[in-house]
Amino acid sequence: MKATIKMAFLQAGMPVEKAEICARVHTESSRDGVYSHGLNRVERFVEYINKGWVDVHAAPTLNLNLGAVEIYNGNMGPGILNALFAMNRATEIAEKNGLGLVSLNNTTHWMRGGAYGWLAAEKGYLAICWTNTESSMPAWGAKSGAIGNNPFIMAVPRKEGPIILDMAMSQYSYGKLEVTRLKDQKLPYAGGFDENGMLTDDPGIIEETRRILPIGFWKGSGFAVMLDIFSSLLSGGLTTAGIDQAGKGSCGSCCQVFISINPLKINTQEFIDKALSETIIQIKSSVPAEENKEIFYPGEQSLKSRKENMESGIPVDDGIWSKVKALAKLNG
Amino acid sequence: MKATIKMAFLQAGMPVEKAEICARVHTESSRDGVYSHGLNRVERFVEYINKGWVDVHAAPTLNLNLGAVEIYNGNMGPGILNALFAMNRATEIAEKNGLGLVSLNNTTHWMRGGAYGWLAAEKGYLAICWTNTESSMPAWGAKSGAIGNNPFIMAVPRKEGPIILDMAMSQYSYGKLEVTRLKDQKLPYAGGFDENGMLTDDPGIIEETRRILPIGFWKGSGFAVMLDIFSSLLSGGLTTAGIDQAGKGSCGSCCQVFISINPLKINTQEFIDKALSETIIQIKSSVPAEENKEIFYPGEQSLKSRKENMESGIPVDDGIWSKVKALAKLNG
Repeated sequence: MKATIKMAFLQAGMPVEKAEICARVHTESSRDGVYSHGLNRVERFVEYINKGWVDVHAAPTLNLNLGAVEIYNGNMGPGILNALFAMNRATEIAEKNGLGLVSLNNTTHWMRGGAYGWLAAEKGYLAICWTNTESSMPAWGAKSGAIGNNPFIMAVPRKEGPIILDMAMSQYSYGKLEVTRLKDQKLPYAGGFDENGMLTDDPGIIEETRRILPIGFWKGSGFAVMLDIFSSLLSGGLTTAGIDQAGKGSCGSCCQVFISINPLKINTQEFIDKALSETIIQIKSSVPAEENKEIFYPGEQSLKSRKENMESGIPVDDGIWSKVKALAKLNG
Repeated sequence: MKATIKMAFLQAGMPVEKAEICARVHTESSRDGVYSHGLNRVERFVEYINKGWVDVHAAPTLNLNLGAVEIYNGNMGPGILNALFAMNRATEIAEKNGLGLVSLNNTTHWMRGGAYGWLAAEKGYLAICWTNTESSMPAWGAKSGAIGNNPFIMAVPRKEGPIILDMAMSQYSYGKLEVTRLKDQKLPYAGGFDENGMLTDDPGIIEETRRILPIGFWKGSGFAVMLDIFSSLLSGGLTTAGIDQAGKGSCGSCCQVFISINPLKINTQEFIDKALSETIIQIKSSVPAEENKEIFYPGEQSLKSRKENMESGIPVDDGIWSKVKALAKLNG
């Protein structure tokens, strides 16, 4: 899968080292079960390159250095490469100072946000990162879209496998709504409002009203607004309102914040191990709501998906796979 | 109200300057409509002093200084005073370095978390802060409590009034459940599970099962876990599991993180004004779901409550007011 995606990116004009890294990140997302931002997102990324919305040759340039804080212009380069650079840089600052914050303005879609949490955690650092996006969700109390479905990630290194939260502000993504509708199923819980303003678990109805539900109703709506404002003010980049005006596709000219902390500057490894293990034990020894069901810590299911997909192969949609092969010119 | 609360704290043995500040913060919480953590919380705070769970004479002592990061032992002093100290210190570091992170271990209940967001925003700083707590909510998929209902605050300074998110991880607090049950009403939306594992909007049933709903179901559950782990690892303090074992009441020996950023080190005032105003305009010009209803930005309703309460007086529960007067020895 990685070789095919890499070929598609090379055909789109990407330099070989960049194509290699981007193909790896897309492939790892599919491998970990985040299908929406892995193989499935290759076609749109190539389309954005062709439209000039992503500059495959651009790299971040430093705008401002405040010591523990560095701000970069992403120059509309590939979002994955910009974000990998920024999170790596944040860990380098954290290695020196304990804490590093790197922000990017003028960047593009980073695909799976969790990838940058994994990066930091695998290097041994705590991480928090988020991005703003174009508007795709109504603010609480509204029926027209005004706020971004901004992803927010927190990551903790741990030798048995990192603990990682990777969540966007809507209860379900539009991708999840589509997949559920195509299977003729209902959502597990209400995921938005119908045309009469009633909560519904029918994905097709929500796709029509476009009133997807923020997590925690008014709380997730407010959180999305704050992540947007912090993205802009910490990077000097565009707000969701500005991204909407820029009109360069999903996350085109968005901004992102990457915070990293070296936990060993603060605690011993022994303290960290104890804090993590007592927390996980407390969660996993809960009484399950349904008999014999396991309670998971954040990120645990990604590791399970990874293991399953590495054993049985990564499931792909045949139509999408054909399109990526066509982009890679492997059909002719 | 402030004078009466101050007298209650003096009677409990608090030094006069400390009683003055704590009374002000409790009173401001009630003034802003956060009744649960204002006047209503005075009795329990005095009880904790009497039990020796809060040391009215203690103040934070520095454990570790990493430059942009400072870690303090709260020495089980009054949570409000410790948190005010920590957020003020974070803004001082941010004034110098752009960014400051101050954490507290071994502290006590900070009452209304939003107070520290307001503090930073009124001084002109961006702020993010959170605390961990004892367990009071089941992890997703469980029916027994294992995770904290940890509050999380983000604050943005703005001349027309700050933009502030102050949210805990449960959809509704136990306080809200009680108030709603006493009025014989239902919750606006489902707030937990009944004994059969079905979502319910009946507050009394949720008080019995104690299966309150995390915001966004599995997402808020994961977020609560991460805030807990970050609190502990950034401060060297106890996790939720550790707080449960310590058994010193609500938030006794918890830990807290205060991050502050000086936005003017990154942007001009003009840039900031534009980013905030275009964001608020985009939200407030949404099509309301119900006709003639206003769409609010985060924190806007606190300002409205404040204005109303300053005009018409702060509503109090007569029973609670009598108890605080009794603690102040103003009845005899």
